[in-house]
Amino acid sequence: MSQQDGRGLRPTRRGLVSVAAGLAIVAGAGLGRDTAAEALVDAAHTGGSTDDGSSQIEPFCGPHQGGITTPMQSHTYAAALDLVTTKRDDVVRLLRVWTSAAARMSSGQPAQSAEPDVARPASDSGEAVGLPSSRLTLTFGFGAGLFVKDGKDRYGLLAQRPQALVDLPHFDGDELIETRTGGDLSVQACANDPQIAFHAVRQLARLAYGVAEVRWAQTGFISGVGPEQTPRNLMGFKDGTSNPSINDPELMRKFVWVGSEGPDWMRGGSYVVLRRIRIALEHWDRMPLDFQEQTFGRHKYSGAPLGLKNEFEPLDLNAVDKDGNLVIPESAHVRLAAVASNDGAQILRRPYSYNDGVNFTTERWPPWRQGVEYDAGLFFVCYQRDPRTGFIKIFGKLSKFDMLNQFVTHTGGGLFACPGGIAPGEFLGQHLFETS
Amino acid sequence: MSQQDGRGLRPTRRGLVSVAAGLAIVAGAGLGRDTAAEALVDAAHTGGSTDDGSSQIEPFCGPHQGGITTPMQSHTYAAALDLVTTKRDDVVRLLRVWTSAAARMSSGQPAQSAEPDVARPASDSGEAVGLPSSRLTLTFGFGAGLFVKDGKDRYGLLAQRPQALVDLPHFDGDELIETRTGGDLSVQACANDPQIAFHAVRQLARLAYGVAEVRWAQTGFISGVGPEQTPRNLMGFKDGTSNPSINDPELMRKFVWVGSEGPDWMRGGSYVVLRRIRIALEHWDRMPLDFQEQTFGRHKYSGAPLGLKNEFEPLDLNAVDKDGNLVIPESAHVRLAAVASNDGAQILRRPYSYNDGVNFTTERWPPWRQGVEYDAGLFFVCYQRDPRTGFIKIFGKLSKFDMLNQFVTHTGGGLFACPGGIAPGEFLGQHLFETS
Repeated sequence: MSQQDGRGLRPTRRGLVSVAAGLAIVAGAGLGRDTAAEALVDAAHTGGSTDDGSSQIEPFCGPHQGGITTPMQSHTYAAALDLVTTKRDDVVRLLRVWTSAAARMSSGQPAQSAEPDVARPASDSGEAVGLPSSRLTLTFGFGAGLFVKDGKDRYGLLAQRPQALVDLPHFDGDELIETRTGGDLSVQACANDPQIAFHAVRQLARLAYGVAEVRWAQTGFISGVGPEQTPRNLMGFKDGTSNPSINDPELMRKFVWVGSEGPDWMRGGSYVVLRRIRIALEHWDRMPLDFQEQTFGRHKYSGAPLGLKNEFEPLDLNAVDKDGNLVIPESAHVRLAAVASNDGAQILRRPYSYNDGVNFTTERWPPWRQGVEYDAGLFFVCYQRDPRTGFIKIFGKLSKFDMLNQFVTHTGGGLFACPGGIAPGEFLGQHLFETS
Repeated sequence: MSQQDGRGLRPTRRGLVSVAAGLAIVAGAGLGRDTAAEALVDAAHTGGSTDDGSSQIEPFCGPHQGGITTPMQSHTYAAALDLVTTKRDDVVRLLRVWTSAAARMSSGQPAQSAEPDVARPASDSGEAVGLPSSRLTLTFGFGAGLFVKDGKDRYGLLAQRPQALVDLPHFDGDELIETRTGGDLSVQACANDPQIAFHAVRQLARLAYGVAEVRWAQTGFISGVGPEQTPRNLMGFKDGTSNPSINDPELMRKFVWVGSEGPDWMRGGSYVVLRRIRIALEHWDRMPLDFQEQTFGRHKYSGAPLGLKNEFEPLDLNAVDKDGNLVIPESAHVRLAAVASNDGAQILRRPYSYNDGVNFTTERWPPWRQGVEYDAGLFFVCYQRDPRTGFIKIFGKLSKFDMLNQFVTHTGGGLFACPGGIAPGEFLGQHLFETS
């Protein structure tokens, strides 16, 4: 086989350059051919890393999809797509092609085996040529629309719709924009380079021409991720201190991965809730520091629970001051979100900040400021075994009582069922289509 | 003096944490006090770098502003602001405060000396606490509106308006959106971390409350910058191969820095043109590779001029093929933009890509596709000694004939006069206000 079939596992995309120069032959990998796809998946399966972080490769195959319990990368590009085909076979073909392309790109290669035919559109748009893979992960999800749309079982999959894949209820304060909400399929690219993340989703969207169309997309970033620190969100507070540890398989099994409750094709999978949350930063920035801290229930700089010194000291929700008042207020964010306040419920948060410039905005809380304000905030991403006992339960309460609500507005997002990991030779969602 | 005065030049913002914990005293630096500002500027002036790239500090003071001939950082956040005050003194005070804050942030400190008063809004929004300075530069510019607005000499500066600070003409194909265009002041933050870049502009905007308001803002990113390679734009082509070298002081003097042609307060400064250029990526991605290459006039993967092998081989605009046809087509981008095609004119490009998700869009060229498309493209930034002989001259021709025009639409931007560098103890624009 040629050097382009993926077995080389080069972390940069120099292979494409060679092909373009006519030095290599086509490896026989037409779109969606199983043999080629399997070879690629085999190649990507080995994963591994080189010495510096940017060329480190996250494995594509495994018991779970990447990008869930993967240590956070610094950038994301997420998209939801609507299926526009009426044919089940088209969907299967798309998922096969996506699997092959995702495996290739995760290992630092172009989306498809390159062909030297300059008279056709290039099989990869090329902006990732020469760049390292930057720990790219691609995480795919299925929305309710894959199973039923407008009351119609479009692809014969209705019987396989998981009970947990509910329609998200309306939450207090929701201002969801239809064109930023929902979608039949989701894909989230995470990488340490925004160009790599966008490149990956763009190639997948190209491969979907005629079958699925992008409905919404969102960029995100986060700084200061790493084993040593908790990143700060745009409110200036540490975000994620009390997240369940991705290094605790028991917690992940209990709260993140779908088990025998099924359906079978979701075993080892998870449910993702995405929410685009605008933060009224101009409003927030005018608040006194102690008000901000009371709102969160933590100290801003140290991240410690109110009244304590260190970030990782446990929350004492019963602590009172000398006057007998609660140290962490009744409506503080950390109190309402705490495990102890939610019957033990936990979700795995993987939140990014987003920054879409400025827009003319009317704030929805006093003083109802109007003007050109930041369209920036939180691109909230969380994974859970069952959204009914995860996000819906926890946020149902937060949306009513959280003091933070004065500063945040949910404007879009969705709920998607992310199937379990892909074994070498399989394609994304294969078990769903084989059992229905 | 305390550790918070900046002389320590710590590359991270841990100083703020200390202050918040009440361990330090206030260094006596109220907003806009010259003594404190001078101390800070002195501190930042030393510049220098530590061993890893992310904590490297770009000097704030010097003969020119940073962010112009500074090697490109990987992220930007640029904003244009409208002045809403009627008072000249307010403008001066703002520029003093901005100078102090910019110097502090460039050296990795919070925007202002922190005070331990929790009953007031924090003097810095805090999301950069603990992060390295990431080579932050802040580049400021003055729009025509500082000198005259609606025919009115608002601040007594009209006589000092540079002749080169023209109103940009309408170019063929312009679809400028008013709310994304113009502005009285500009500030561009560049850093290797998007959170650091946004943080910096957000603090400056906070310091401008009541004096100036953000009119538009734009994020940008670029990957693969560095001495070894030319970065690729979202079209997949290398962008910047024929840029004049920032390491050639003679070229910079000739084409970038304002000289004795004046006015005096602009000596050592430059003019920046910003353009938000949407690229119809879905359209572009459907084009055959050879068509893309003919459009650019370069090979996609190598970056070499058409017909040649290596990126840095000189353009031969007269080369013909065996049939006598020009190898680089008449309307190829590189031909029209070439120095030889523009009477020797050169500009220093410092372009970023931008990615604002997707929007419903009508393409403006055949096949006039309509649908949800990427709102992504190029955040074009270029510096020049005189825009009349730089961007206006070169783009005037490109806008008429460039084959690339089928794929790009200019939707916003502006022209700003960036004063010369700030000496220790000075404030931004001081020479302008002292001479008028």
